[in-house]
Amino acid sequence: MLRSQFDEDLTKLHTQFYEMGMAVSEAIYKSVKAFVNHDKALAQEVIEGDKSINKRELKLEKKSFEMIALQQPVTKDLRMIVTVMKASSDLERMGDHAVSIAKSTIRVKGNKRIPEVEADIYEMAENVKQMVDAVLMAYVKSDAKAARKIAKSDEHVNHFFKKIYAESIQIMEKHPETVIGGTDYLQVAGYLERIGDYVTNICEWIVYLKTGKISELNVNQKK
Amino acid sequence: MLRSQFDEDLTKLHTQFYEMGMAVSEAIYKSVKAFVNHDKALAQEVIEGDKSINKRELKLEKKSFEMIALQQPVTKDLRMIVTVMKASSDLERMGDHAVSIAKSTIRVKGNKRIPEVEADIYEMAENVKQMVDAVLMAYVKSDAKAARKIAKSDEHVNHFFKKIYAESIQIMEKHPETVIGGTDYLQVAGYLERIGDYVTNICEWIVYLKTGKISELNVNQKK
Repeated sequence: MLRSQFDEDLTKLHTQFYEMGMAVSEAIYKSVKAFVNHDKALAQEVIEGDKSINKRELKLEKKSFEMIALQQPVTKDLRMIVTVMKASSDLERMGDHAVSIAKSTIRVKGNKRIPEVEADIYEMAENVKQMVDAVLMAYVKSDAKAARKIAKSDEHVNHFFKKIYAESIQIMEKHPETVIGGTDYLQVAGYLERIGDYVTNICEWIVYLKTGKISELNVNQKK
Repeated sequence: MLRSQFDEDLTKLHTQFYEMGMAVSEAIYKSVKAFVNHDKALAQEVIEGDKSINKRELKLEKKSFEMIALQQPVTKDLRMIVTVMKASSDLERMGDHAVSIAKSTIRVKGNKRIPEVEADIYEMAENVKQMVDAVLMAYVKSDAKAARKIAKSDEHVNHFFKKIYAESIQIMEKHPETVIGGTDYLQVAGYLERIGDYVTNICEWIVYLKTGKISELNVNQKK
């Protein structure tokens, strides 16, 4: 294996992964912004942008596959490529959840909204976005310590989910006219919560890269 | 590369994948049965069984990695191993959703239930289980035609999701005392719908195995 060629390809792969991640992070941010501001045009933008995220995944997939086939890496090098393949699936699904949030925005037809729940969703989304950005940085730096810390912060996101769930149910019980809007909140909070789980998956991959061991960082945090 | 050794290992890998899939299929079936019958003991069984599913994934992961590192397969052989790695992540997440359904069952504390929605959830789950079993068979036979057909049948599952969603909302609006139970239905139907999406992912892997091309079989079916 030509070392310098491999290192060059690997750097390219990591850059592509990081760029895909930033595109996903932006999609999540925009989708929640669109949802909270009832901005259907912005939601449509997120839906259309998903195609380019999917294309990025295919490109990463292809590049990883070529590197394994042509350069036949072993041990740590192989592990790095396998990790990119696995983690890019997680990113792609995070992007899909952003699309689902965007679709909730488009579906909504002037139902009764609940401002206090929307404020919580917005704050939850900010937490999730911070997790996404942090995990991309931890990935690039291959920082296992940061990865463990980020995985831990998913508890905070899960806490928001529970809070939004409890609030929405209470209001829906009292004011039946909020049921349609309220179930949308539950869905959007559910998507955000799952994006947090995907971030935790990527944290696991980062730890795996460092240690060669697959750890379950989110065992106690799953619903 | 020693051909006979590789083939032997590959058969072992496929058998492990199939067995993991069957364990997941059983978990999904049991979780819905527990949910509909309010059977907390069965739900607990699903939650505990998830550990063994996760162990199976780690074993598959390890075996795949070893095969790549030691036997350095190329083209179609490599593609088969990469596919197992990717598809086993999908299976593992399907198992996680079964756990989430089981947890909904344990959470429920004698709320008002809606029998007609429960009947639909049960039927939806039967459809999903058929998809899961069929995709495992298509995988073992590496039957791309069957895979495309299975992916198409996900539309049916999505249709159930929409039906359950509409029914639940209507009843919750009229009878606020059903709000807690109703949002649980929405969540469970959402998990089942996502399990259908994961099956579609595996269908994509099967087509990929045959053609070497990654296709998006569920583009039009996503929510």
